[in-house]
Amino acid sequence: MIDRLIEKIKEKESPIVVGLDPRLSFVPEWIKEECYGEYGKTPKAAAEAFLKFNMEIIDATYDLVPAVKPQIAMYEQYGAHGIEAYIKTIEYSKKKSLIVIGDIKRGDIASTAEAYSHGHIGRVGVEEMEFEIYKEDAITINPYLGFDSIEPFLADCSRYDKGLFLLVKTSNPNSGEIQNLDIGGELLYERIGQLVSKWGKGLIGASGYNSIGAVVGATHPEEAKKLRKIMPNTYFLVPGYGAQGATAADLAGCFNKDGLGAIINSSRGIIAAHKSKEYENKFSKKDFALASREAVIKMKQDLQNVLRTFV
Amino acid sequence: MIDRLIEKIKEKESPIVVGLDPRLSFVPEWIKEECYGEYGKTPKAAAEAFLKFNMEIIDATYDLVPAVKPQIAMYEQYGAHGIEAYIKTIEYSKKKSLIVIGDIKRGDIASTAEAYSHGHIGRVGVEEMEFEIYKEDAITINPYLGFDSIEPFLADCSRYDKGLFLLVKTSNPNSGEIQNLDIGGELLYERIGQLVSKWGKGLIGASGYNSIGAVVGATHPEEAKKLRKIMPNTYFLVPGYGAQGATAADLAGCFNKDGLGAIINSSRGIIAAHKSKEYENKFSKKDFALASREAVIKMKQDLQNVLRTFV
Repeated sequence: MIDRLIEKIKEKESPIVVGLDPRLSFVPEWIKEECYGEYGKTPKAAAEAFLKFNMEIIDATYDLVPAVKPQIAMYEQYGAHGIEAYIKTIEYSKKKSLIVIGDIKRGDIASTAEAYSHGHIGRVGVEEMEFEIYKEDAITINPYLGFDSIEPFLADCSRYDKGLFLLVKTSNPNSGEIQNLDIGGELLYERIGQLVSKWGKGLIGASGYNSIGAVVGATHPEEAKKLRKIMPNTYFLVPGYGAQGATAADLAGCFNKDGLGAIINSSRGIIAAHKSKEYENKFSKKDFALASREAVIKMKQDLQNVLRTFV
Repeated sequence: MIDRLIEKIKEKESPIVVGLDPRLSFVPEWIKEECYGEYGKTPKAAAEAFLKFNMEIIDATYDLVPAVKPQIAMYEQYGAHGIEAYIKTIEYSKKKSLIVIGDIKRGDIASTAEAYSHGHIGRVGVEEMEFEIYKEDAITINPYLGFDSIEPFLADCSRYDKGLFLLVKTSNPNSGEIQNLDIGGELLYERIGQLVSKWGKGLIGASGYNSIGAVVGATHPEEAKKLRKIMPNTYFLVPGYGAQGATAADLAGCFNKDGLGAIINSSRGIIAAHKSKEYENKFSKKDFALASREAVIKMKQDLQNVLRTFV
């Protein structure tokens, strides 16, 4: 997975992942009206509106970015219809040759972890038949349960060229409550960083990077710098840029000297750009996704300025 | 939630939760053939087979137990059809007046945590309409992200009389790798136990117990005893009995002197009882679920013997 991702990052010259975390308040009225007209004001209509919204965003940005990251919670809340929209969003993204990182933050043990792995990045069996269900290229995973909660995923990563991003240091204000506990000379997130490196040892690609990555919040630049040293071969999936308050300068420590090592997520800043002061009157209602395109271009320049300072 | 759960535990005289974690290998051939006949060997057929299987198990056990715990991974792996079967399993369980604990182990922040909460234990909005989607009474949650990943759920717990079980000490062999790290005079899981107690302070019911419970594995009896002291008002959801190796004696420390404080999960031991040596030739193929009934009765006696020793 990681070599495919890096190839696309180089090709698009942008380490950006578009977070497809739709909310109804982000979706333009004309899309909602179409869906409500067809299905009423129902979970099915909401899910359908998300899918149409995502397709517009993808169409307007896919040539500029290597990857998208749909957040499954936003879809899952609408039940089976939501899951259907999540899967169709992934299928559409892959048609546009985007790498898809499923932000699912699952974490469970034994046969349960296996079920998540088979469903999301592997194959599920029904007697002699095999099915690819969710088709993500990589997924986010919570490591709190230890190695036997990770191991079932590694087999599918290796078999199907997929990847994981394990939560190490998250971007939220209370992340330190547990993750920054002192475990005797080092902090918990540092230890988890070491474990993640160790667990992924067998999945280093030709690029020198590992298909088992880490989630490291841009909102904690000092911690990110430390983790960059602890896990030099690990790719960071970095949330927190933009809406959550982190600036491009905060991101510098997430990258390696080769200009690689991190992919930066922006969700609201891109997908809700048409609602922002900057773009709200700039495009017609039908062309709302062009605001997302401009937001991506601006973010790309912002990141290139950061990378220029040390590469 | 907790008062409703305790009332049912007393009424049924059994602190047992049936883990509805189906696999195709557990489902009798006649159910599978029916579903394959109708839908082919497809994810839809597998999901339908799970639902029919669950309904048989529920019919055979609902008068003996207070609660069921469907494990969402087993359903989610089959995509939207699986989620549909998960939801229908919950609806059927609630018709039989069972408390439903959704084993979803989600954990995320801000608006994402809110989406999980609204979908699973709250209401989701589509304009002025509100929908109950999953309808669990309680769900399991991973606390690694800290309080701001828990807070969005507390509002729905209080508003809709729902509950959470937060992962504190899980039952798997590698759970100690992170959970037992020494954070200076105490271990990480002990600290998380304290945090869970604190986070749930506002949700203590008339029973004196808290609607914010803890997952504590029966496979770690010494740790369970310590946690029982650290969090006296917290209900434990206890996996690990039976198939994972814990015996009734290992459970003693999970209960309080009032004979309450813990609900013990058994999945495979109950739902796959008809495949075990003990019961495999005892019932007709159509009546396979009577083996589950006998397994529940046996487990109930086993637990009553434990409780008798100290209540």
